[in-house]
Amino acid sequence: MSDQPVQPPEQVAEGEQKSKKQLQREKKEAEKAQKKKEHQQEQKQQEQIVQEEDNCVGRYGDLNLIQSQERTNRKWTKVGDVDQTLVNQVILVRARIHNSRVKGKLAFLVLRENYNTIQVVAEKGEFASAQMLKFMSGIPVESVVDIEALVKQPFKEILSCTQKVELEVRSIRVVSRSLPMLPFQIEDASRRITDFEDGIQEQKQEEPQQKQEEVQQKQDKNEKQQIQVMLKTRLDNRVIDLRTPAKQAIFRVQSGIGLLFREFLVENGFIEIHTPKLIGGTSEGGTNVFKLKYFNQDACLAQSPQLYKQMCLMADYDRVFEVAPVFRAENSNTHRHQCEFISMDIEMVIKEHFTELLDLMGDLCIYMFKGIEKRYQKEIEIISQQFPFEPFKIPEPVLKLTFEEGVKMLHEAGVNQDPHDDLDTVNEKTLGKLVREKYGTDFYILHRYPKKARPFYTMPCHDDPNYTLSYDFFMRGEEIVSGAQRVHDPELLVKQIKEKGIAVEPLKDYIDSFRYGAYPHGGCAFGLERVAFLYFNLKNIRNACMFPRDPVRLFP
Amino acid sequence: MSDQPVQPPEQVAEGEQKSKKQLQREKKEAEKAQKKKEHQQEQKQQEQIVQEEDNCVGRYGDLNLIQSQERTNRKWTKVGDVDQTLVNQVILVRARIHNSRVKGKLAFLVLRENYNTIQVVAEKGEFASAQMLKFMSGIPVESVVDIEALVKQPFKEILSCTQKVELEVRSIRVVSRSLPMLPFQIEDASRRITDFEDGIQEQKQEEPQQKQEEVQQKQDKNEKQQIQVMLKTRLDNRVIDLRTPAKQAIFRVQSGIGLLFREFLVENGFIEIHTPKLIGGTSEGGTNVFKLKYFNQDACLAQSPQLYKQMCLMADYDRVFEVAPVFRAENSNTHRHQCEFISMDIEMVIKEHFTELLDLMGDLCIYMFKGIEKRYQKEIEIISQQFPFEPFKIPEPVLKLTFEEGVKMLHEAGVNQDPHDDLDTVNEKTLGKLVREKYGTDFYILHRYPKKARPFYTMPCHDDPNYTLSYDFFMRGEEIVSGAQRVHDPELLVKQIKEKGIAVEPLKDYIDSFRYGAYPHGGCAFGLERVAFLYFNLKNIRNACMFPRDPVRLFP
Repeated sequence: MSDQPVQPPEQVAEGEQKSKKQLQREKKEAEKAQKKKEHQQEQKQQEQIVQEEDNCVGRYGDLNLIQSQERTNRKWTKVGDVDQTLVNQVILVRARIHNSRVKGKLAFLVLRENYNTIQVVAEKGEFASAQMLKFMSGIPVESVVDIEALVKQPFKEILSCTQKVELEVRSIRVVSRSLPMLPFQIEDASRRITDFEDGIQEQKQEEPQQKQEEVQQKQDKNEKQQIQVMLKTRLDNRVIDLRTPAKQAIFRVQSGIGLLFREFLVENGFIEIHTPKLIGGTSEGGTNVFKLKYFNQDACLAQSPQLYKQMCLMADYDRVFEVAPVFRAENSNTHRHQCEFISMDIEMVIKEHFTELLDLMGDLCIYMFKGIEKRYQKEIEIISQQFPFEPFKIPEPVLKLTFEEGVKMLHEAGVNQDPHDDLDTVNEKTLGKLVREKYGTDFYILHRYPKKARPFYTMPCHDDPNYTLSYDFFMRGEEIVSGAQRVHDPELLVKQIKEKGIAVEPLKDYIDSFRYGAYPHGGCAFGLERVAFLYFNLKNIRNACMFPRDPVRLFP
Repeated sequence: MSDQPVQPPEQVAEGEQKSKKQLQREKKEAEKAQKKKEHQQEQKQQEQIVQEEDNCVGRYGDLNLIQSQERTNRKWTKVGDVDQTLVNQVILVRARIHNSRVKGKLAFLVLRENYNTIQVVAEKGEFASAQMLKFMSGIPVESVVDIEALVKQPFKEILSCTQKVELEVRSIRVVSRSLPMLPFQIEDASRRITDFEDGIQEQKQEEPQQKQEEVQQKQDKNEKQQIQVMLKTRLDNRVIDLRTPAKQAIFRVQSGIGLLFREFLVENGFIEIHTPKLIGGTSEGGTNVFKLKYFNQDACLAQSPQLYKQMCLMADYDRVFEVAPVFRAENSNTHRHQCEFISMDIEMVIKEHFTELLDLMGDLCIYMFKGIEKRYQKEIEIISQQFPFEPFKIPEPVLKLTFEEGVKMLHEAGVNQDPHDDLDTVNEKTLGKLVREKYGTDFYILHRYPKKARPFYTMPCHDDPNYTLSYDFFMRGEEIVSGAQRVHDPELLVKQIKEKGIAVEPLKDYIDSFRYGAYPHGGCAFGLERVAFLYFNLKNIRNACMFPRDPVRLFP
């Protein structure tokens, strides 16, 4: 990477002696002289080039702005599809220049498309004039180019690219030039994430706008200097950061998680619904809502589709799901909170028992996890190069513990936990570790949560009103699913709303929906970003969201 | 429907004579006497029933609140699955009582589950005591019941139910009772929609809160009195209205439209993305945005994912789609405007020409329309009973006209149309009619819109800067898709933003995303509700949205 705009400054130890400084000065002067000499040589070369006849005229240059002038129906090949089967064929590729190196009569480019890379060579001769090589050397990295090239078997194995064949240039045309200075280099942003980097350390809530150093140095285990790109820099320049191979893979898998979720549910008789995000009143009566003016009414943004998906069930759509954004005005700057995220919601009628729901949701999780593993091997490999993670352990059948059993495990390990209150994040993580040690699983279900920990619409247990027919699913010690049987009796519902100190009147439409014959039912919600974040151990939920929203971030 | 709470008032012509009034008074008195007599008879019967021995004890009654007390693993059969193959078997069904009629020793119920109905009979004897029949007669319609029953071949064909077999009751237990008075009857809300009803007539913007009559009478062609349920009443009591067969079918098909859309795109290499709905600045720089406070920043709700989906492409996700809500603070009270709706967005790189996109989108539409027809025959049949519509004509290949050709057709028909300005709704409809007459199609593409009619990010035509590489798809004369090739050159983009008088600064992140190598690209957006609304000719977009949002409606 000879063209890195941001060079790591040389390290200068404190308290060094004058002689050392002098030595450095001399070194710098020598470098200067060397550079001058090189520059002169280069100028001479340039003059030579201009004088030489160009046998490649028309085979390189900048294309006009593509504006649907013509449709040639030529075939473009994807970088990821260029392999041994195409050797000796001339193909056409449109991709970015990932990096380039021109040395004398040889030019080496690496092209990148999505997370795939391929080496391109040009040697001065029949297919590349000196002028063409010069042109190639002047194309900034990240520019988009059309290259016609012969696919060749390389003399020695190419380790630095995903594709194991190389391309010998026939023509090169620039579709769109990048600015020569990038906010950061793709390569720096693609390095293996270590504990040093953001994600582990939470942003300090007290100084949210605090300017962070954009580029930091560190010594890695091999004592090589490496540039680390900070999370803030990545998010400020998200479009560049999303080009890194791991991000390319993460969001492909995330699309797949949505597909797997839908496949399973549609197969099991669910329909997809769309409920409003603009809500009159105060959503579920909670705090932490974003408020706004809706013409001349007061409105807020839905914190979840909870009330609406239940109303859909009362309207005889007996199994529904929704994948949609939800909004939480929670002023939490942590590695796992977002003010807007994608909630994958499910609601279904049950005949007798909330385990009908629980069992199906367990099966759904297994289906999704196995599906990821099966369909996205390549992406998993790529992600793990930047975000190392231990394979996800899920013994079947899925482990189910009651909340009381969980509390007992914590107590036995000497951890304080009120049996009638919710687990906090620390205790959740601790319990996750205890469960992994005892049962060898990264995924388990905790059910029968205390009443205090759950919302008003949760059905109490028939045998103990202090507990509820509710559950959370845990992945690597963090919650990914929260669900329960709901109250379908309007009188009990009103009683529980009042007990929580919530106003009944704004919930009238919702409560009334249970007055005209109500089916027993239950449901749950998955956080889409959380599934990817925890499955791949991405350290920070922002790594699983293209354009995250937190209390300080609203751009891009 | 002897138990209708809302009876059409008897018609009394104005200016009638006293003798007529007297006649009426006498009639009423006679009715009173008759009722008294019936009541006495009933009381007598009741006394008899109490005295009789009950041979059905334990086979009817109200169930306790279902609270996951036990899981029996009994098998429930869906109403829609009860057919000839089950004759002579005893099955268990959970469904609503659609209507009930008890006459002497016979009780007839109709059960309804989703849009399926089945007749249930009980005759006094071995399987039904007088007490049980009395209990059955007291269950309000819309209550949810568990019924065990023998499946029987009826003596004569049942015309009024979807299922052609009948059930002979063995046991009946109430899961959840409805209030006896419904806001309106399901049957009234299920009647065939005529021009009389809402949908054709637009709400008057000047008097949005105007109280509408809740129930109206009219004479239909057969001179029978019919109750029509007004749109406002339906929307105020949406959960009841959504139980009608047509609505049950519409939202099942709508779920399917989303599936078909995804299937086609995933098959063609697209991934699903999720972009933020909370946006800094002013979305696309337009008016009509909902504004809100985001902690201490100014934010607005996304009018479309336009800028973000393009940024995803610049981040090397080369084919993306999103299905998500968008928000428009447009004070329009028409049959086709919504303030929140589901936008099905697509964006993809193109190599040379926007017809690459156009052809694929044409194929996508064909795939969706044919898929609806193939997979939802039953639902189409049910919907057409309430919303009659002409079958949708789509000859292949899809007809493409340029905007100039469209203008010419309008001019030839004597219609005024500025060739450099957008079509208004009336001219869109007129052109739709002209196209249907000339080409016999309900679906066509109009492309090369004038520059004035399109947003700043639209690529101008290379051969005429007054026109753009843009298009709309029309269904029955109304737009369902709008799309274009986009500008991928940052300088041209800035120029066009300024030309439209929009501030450049808030769009900085977006514009910058094209500065580091940009792929030529284009895209489009479908309105999900519009597809269903126009395909089925539902007259009002609110019939294609579960919980619609318009300038006056924020509840439920």
